[in-house]
Amino acid sequence: MIGGGQLARMTHQAAIALGQSLRVLSTGPRESAALVAADVVLGDHRDLDALLRVAEGATVVTFDHEHVPTEHLRALERVGHRVAPGPDALVHAQDKLVLRRALTAAGEPQPVWAEVDTPVGVTDFAGATGWPVVLKTPRGGYDGRGVFLAQDADEAAALLERHGTLLAEERVPMVRELAVQVARSPFGQVAVWPVVETVQRDGVCHEVLAPAPGLDEGTATGAQELAIRIAERLGVVGLLAVELFQTADGVLVNELAMRPHNSGHWTIEGARTSQFEQHLRAVLDYPLGTTTMTAPVVVMANVLGGAAAAPGWTGPGLDERVHHFMAHWPDVKLHWYGKGQRPGRKLGHVTALGDDLGEVRARAVAAARYLADGVIDPAFAFGDEH
Amino acid sequence: MIGGGQLARMTHQAAIALGQSLRVLSTGPRESAALVAADVVLGDHRDLDALLRVAEGATVVTFDHEHVPTEHLRALERVGHRVAPGPDALVHAQDKLVLRRALTAAGEPQPVWAEVDTPVGVTDFAGATGWPVVLKTPRGGYDGRGVFLAQDADEAAALLERHGTLLAEERVPMVRELAVQVARSPFGQVAVWPVVETVQRDGVCHEVLAPAPGLDEGTATGAQELAIRIAERLGVVGLLAVELFQTADGVLVNELAMRPHNSGHWTIEGARTSQFEQHLRAVLDYPLGTTTMTAPVVVMANVLGGAAAAPGWTGPGLDERVHHFMAHWPDVKLHWYGKGQRPGRKLGHVTALGDDLGEVRARAVAAARYLADGVIDPAFAFGDEH
Repeated sequence: MIGGGQLARMTHQAAIALGQSLRVLSTGPRESAALVAADVVLGDHRDLDALLRVAEGATVVTFDHEHVPTEHLRALERVGHRVAPGPDALVHAQDKLVLRRALTAAGEPQPVWAEVDTPVGVTDFAGATGWPVVLKTPRGGYDGRGVFLAQDADEAAALLERHGTLLAEERVPMVRELAVQVARSPFGQVAVWPVVETVQRDGVCHEVLAPAPGLDEGTATGAQELAIRIAERLGVVGLLAVELFQTADGVLVNELAMRPHNSGHWTIEGARTSQFEQHLRAVLDYPLGTTTMTAPVVVMANVLGGAAAAPGWTGPGLDERVHHFMAHWPDVKLHWYGKGQRPGRKLGHVTALGDDLGEVRARAVAAARYLADGVIDPAFAFGDEH
Repeated sequence: MIGGGQLARMTHQAAIALGQSLRVLSTGPRESAALVAADVVLGDHRDLDALLRVAEGATVVTFDHEHVPTEHLRALERVGHRVAPGPDALVHAQDKLVLRRALTAAGEPQPVWAEVDTPVGVTDFAGATGWPVVLKTPRGGYDGRGVFLAQDADEAAALLERHGTLLAEERVPMVRELAVQVARSPFGQVAVWPVVETVQRDGVCHEVLAPAPGLDEGTATGAQELAIRIAERLGVVGLLAVELFQTADGVLVNELAMRPHNSGHWTIEGARTSQFEQHLRAVLDYPLGTTTMTAPVVVMANVLGGAAAAPGWTGPGLDERVHHFMAHWPDVKLHWYGKGQRPGRKLGHVTALGDDLGEVRARAVAAARYLADGVIDPAFAFGDEH
């Protein structure tokens, strides 16, 4: 697996159960997965020699992120390595313009878009969609980075000056964000989990609600079928996460990830087969596992570095917070990534399961917030009955 | 963790989620846990120097097995290491005579027993309980090894000649075997899982049924209370598995394990907190997790090396069997230990969950048998509906 982040870390847990040996390419020994995996190659994912070293003897090469240059993936394939997803599929998760063109060709629903490289181009686009215009760097965006809102031609000009060619998109009047995950094997078997709602703030995922509350069955099934069609058309092997905008008229494709994804962490406890196990099954060409949920409602909340990760913090330290978390929420599951604390950084996540969305969500969010900030939600004050 | 077997392997999975770093003392690099853990010390658990090396800098030292000499544990404690469970507790899982004496002193239910070192002693014992007499080596027994059935004084004499002092026990007219697992923290918090039935053949656990089918509530609660009393009285820190004989009159204590145990593998998917996570929480003095079940019925079946592990096997190879297993039982969870195949060896286990004991049990057993033997149970023939 190329990349030593938390996705590789959690994939290692799944690999252990399957009796598989996961080798990780990590840029440093203190990365999340490098701390726990037995077989770690240190090196950069942009260095072909490092990629060749990690691929040596492996059954298949797969990814914790989308940052490996396409030409390196082709080079790996030329010398006989299996790469899953392959470069022709992966480029759709790497380059938003390539994705938009492919979805247009396929006739799939997406925001109105244009490739722009001049201020006039953006102004023309805004003539049809109105200001503000969403401008995105085609490559390298991540957790809201590389996504901008231009209010007028001057702002657009400044962004073009800085970033070169951009993807312009209409600002979608969305109700909320959804995500669907599907796994596809080289054989062509697919397995899809229930559609989830992702709650984002400033482009960063804070919560995932499974299944998406109140989603009508037609839209849910339609979104699952859309994800399967995209996986098949692009020849994805492994996991595909399709991020969607839900509007009054249906769903539009926002972007893709071709790997385990934050929107699927809930599946570790919340589905019979987790996204990490399923990704391994898919890229290794094993039959896929059952995706049914293990509880009526599952909520995942990210633990993002907060007040407690900032300099000068004088509240309870991390270990003390983990103690309190475990005492107060003995049924909420913790996943800690082993990373150094820093404000805004994804340090871990928690998952709560149950029958009632309001209760489960409040529990997950309060637990995550306490771990991050040492803040006790009044609704979950210590000593209260709930 | 002292010992590099499958218990350490599965504990590593739990440690990853908790953000803990598990260091393993393994006798070789190909042991189950050594294959997957990032921090492996090679050495023998009977070598104090190796124990001191693995303990260096660790928060606490705990165990994958009971084979560390008591004097070494005391030596670790003397130089300031925390050992959990401590030597005074652990000796009750190491020495069956010590256990029998402690249970007699505590007035807890157990088989009629005696310490014997002469054939006359065994004959006297049989005068009260009848032949055959169960004879056990006080130390080193494991999966049925070190347990004998003497039909008469001659057989008893031969066993005493070979093994020295033995523990004599009445042959209990048992209905079935049960097990209860309890975790206890240094603080004294306890958490107990539902009582399970363990299905043994030739002293080796084949299946675990959770909860124990048809067990009346009084007996179940009584068995849980018994396990808690033993954990408290012996000062156990970490996991305690109490193996029980159920008779017409109630339960009798067979033996103890003070670590994650085969009778608790079902908790990985079957309980909100797995025995592996709970063991870590307990020995690290974190509050314990919820032990409620995640489904009405959970069945674990061991995959024991069978025909397919024997020389000359011409049926489907392991990888092919795993393919078929995954295709046919997409909802049965696999845990593979990464060990070389050998007849009788515990190679892995599978867990099935559901509502109906008969269906869940048949599914788990058929899947485990297919993985072990390449044998298709007619009730689960490929292509059938079920």
